[in-house]
Amino acid sequence: MKPIGPIPAAFATQQGELMIGGCGVSDLAVRTGQTPFFVYDLDLATAQVERFRAAMPNEIHLHYAVKANPHPAVIKHLMSLTDGLDMASGGELERVRDCGAAMEHVSFAGPGKRDPELELAISLGATLNLESENEAVRALAIAERLGVTPRLAVRVNPDFELKGSGMSMGGGAKPFGIDQERVPALVRKLIAAGADWRGFHIYSGSQSLDVDAIAECQRASIALAADLAHAIGETPKSVNLGGGFGIPYTANDVPLDVESVGSRLSQALSARDAILQDTQFMIELGRWLIGEAGVYVAKILDRKESKGELFFVTDGGMHHHLAASGNFGMVMKRNYPVAIASHMGAETVGSATIVGPLCTPLDKLAADMAVPEAQIGDYVAVFASGAYGLSASPVHFLSHPMASEIVVKGGKITI
Amino acid sequence: MKPIGPIPAAFATQQGELMIGGCGVSDLAVRTGQTPFFVYDLDLATAQVERFRAAMPNEIHLHYAVKANPHPAVIKHLMSLTDGLDMASGGELERVRDCGAAMEHVSFAGPGKRDPELELAISLGATLNLESENEAVRALAIAERLGVTPRLAVRVNPDFELKGSGMSMGGGAKPFGIDQERVPALVRKLIAAGADWRGFHIYSGSQSLDVDAIAECQRASIALAADLAHAIGETPKSVNLGGGFGIPYTANDVPLDVESVGSRLSQALSARDAILQDTQFMIELGRWLIGEAGVYVAKILDRKESKGELFFVTDGGMHHHLAASGNFGMVMKRNYPVAIASHMGAETVGSATIVGPLCTPLDKLAADMAVPEAQIGDYVAVFASGAYGLSASPVHFLSHPMASEIVVKGGKITI
Repeated sequence: MKPIGPIPAAFATQQGELMIGGCGVSDLAVRTGQTPFFVYDLDLATAQVERFRAAMPNEIHLHYAVKANPHPAVIKHLMSLTDGLDMASGGELERVRDCGAAMEHVSFAGPGKRDPELELAISLGATLNLESENEAVRALAIAERLGVTPRLAVRVNPDFELKGSGMSMGGGAKPFGIDQERVPALVRKLIAAGADWRGFHIYSGSQSLDVDAIAECQRASIALAADLAHAIGETPKSVNLGGGFGIPYTANDVPLDVESVGSRLSQALSARDAILQDTQFMIELGRWLIGEAGVYVAKILDRKESKGELFFVTDGGMHHHLAASGNFGMVMKRNYPVAIASHMGAETVGSATIVGPLCTPLDKLAADMAVPEAQIGDYVAVFASGAYGLSASPVHFLSHPMASEIVVKGGKITI
Repeated sequence: MKPIGPIPAAFATQQGELMIGGCGVSDLAVRTGQTPFFVYDLDLATAQVERFRAAMPNEIHLHYAVKANPHPAVIKHLMSLTDGLDMASGGELERVRDCGAAMEHVSFAGPGKRDPELELAISLGATLNLESENEAVRALAIAERLGVTPRLAVRVNPDFELKGSGMSMGGGAKPFGIDQERVPALVRKLIAAGADWRGFHIYSGSQSLDVDAIAECQRASIALAADLAHAIGETPKSVNLGGGFGIPYTANDVPLDVESVGSRLSQALSARDAILQDTQFMIELGRWLIGEAGVYVAKILDRKESKGELFFVTDGGMHHHLAASGNFGMVMKRNYPVAIASHMGAETVGSATIVGPLCTPLDKLAADMAVPEAQIGDYVAVFASGAYGLSASPVHFLSHPMASEIVVKGGKITI
């Protein structure tokens, strides 16, 4: 039997049925008109924002990293609660423009920006986080052609990395950003060219649950920003300290102690170099804000035994939720938090593997987990599915139907 | 420096430029109107079909497994050359219906078929490969309601597996098919219910390069079919021996010796039990037919150095080609066959990592490979990309533009 990840405490149960934002899962399925679906409980996202605000120093701005979940209702909700939005493509930029985002609080990072993307960002007035000298040259040329003063920040590839993070993005040779020692020369060129130089973007890793690692990275990022500012001889208007706050996915993951991160960051900010006194610091979060607010719900289509083992075959699978199947940067398959949503809290009677409808052994939602008595027609819930779920999955694989996405807020389905 | 996989020999070079189906890669890019794109050389697929026919016993039918590449032009081409098509979903069934497929030569396997999918298959007259007793009950009920005699075969979960295959689908407890010992009872029920019982589907693994393993599986499948036929007391009209023929992807992969597979299969068929004398045998192939016919082409957007290492950032990446990035069931990232398509055969001058535009370290097309002198604007080709490419990738991830798909045939772009 393999353990499952921790089910977020915010989800209640009523007469054995999983409740999401006050709605029963079977009611959600009826109202959605189909399974599988993703449901995002926006009140849980609100609670995360509030927890962040309470834990962090007041002067820290919070940005939502749209790449985690680009659903328009999620964008609009988090846009209303946070101080800005971070983009990873021109497509995301178009999306937040259509959601009515204030472009002076929007930034755009990404190692391979095409000219039309640079042009879109500059003409909208978003801040470009430049990833290379060449990109800087292209951006300045486009801005000149458009007759616009571009907002330009520089993404720094720092010498340190976020240790123990799910994905490291700094330290050593990287495709992201510009090696720290080359940054001052580039910034001087941007200033000389008349650009509105905004500051630095220092993003060194993601999905970390380790307070010490995050705190040390933030401290090092602030110190690096000060060193760079001195080398340039100018105070950056803003420093984006990146993100990196993880959520628990698998059995041994312990939730991040955000309050400790906040108090460590307070200390680091209090001790910062005078050159950064008027700098606006920001943290960009995606997964931590919306990840645990999302649940993927599928229906059991078949219950079968093979060689004495039990399988539940659902209508959902890796085509909608690649990460839960263990095929999105994971070294090995570990179970996400998964439950039979129709029989919450019921006594377990054995173990089962929960698979999807695809003709591949990769298509597993949970391997060999403890299950209660369950039948065809029951619902399966995969928690921690609000970030990097549907938008990060091979939805056209094997030409199965698309999952729906719905939103609950204040105890009601709003989409 | 890490090795790359073997570039298929069929691709020529003209003055340093990669030719695909007689067309230069830069010409293809201009004609496509964008990069990245997938290009499928249908003449190479034709050559594979011809090689199969020459290698295999005459009595073997060849089916195309549409899941490998569901592009309509690919379906239509392979439909015209093969003896039937195999589906993995109702969506694929709709696709081949729209391509004009002859439904008596179409079959449909998959562990989680929904009622509307069963209804579609039965009403169109396709053969259902039943994956469980429950699915059989549902199919019979739907057929009765429709007043149609359903074509039903049984997918068998054999006691053996395709050893050393990329993905094993038989042997031990599996979500696929019905354990072999329960098959006779089910088939008797199908016959008693008046269904048109077609026979067996025995699919025990995929992506194998090992003649012995494939030959032994085919021999065992034929023997199993005979045992089951005796237990039932009826001759199956057809036995689908599955697929499993792999193609080389990475440096140590040696192409499958299909001619040896064919001669071993000839022996096994000659020695088969009399009860299978009039049975039609078939092999279903996807990847082996179309995989090497496809090339993914991206353009270099940036050339950057970081800590002394060279990176080419392209406009293509894991969102179009998850498998090449090493995130589709692979235990570790090994390089696919990749080349700088604008400088084929040029002297290598160092090593570089080729990444995509996504803000994640997972987005790599090739790690630390030997490269010639190359610049922004040059093309990068990822070979062996005709199967499980675009349709198996998270195309909406980070909201980047979709890749195009084009087809060449007879030295011309036909789409």
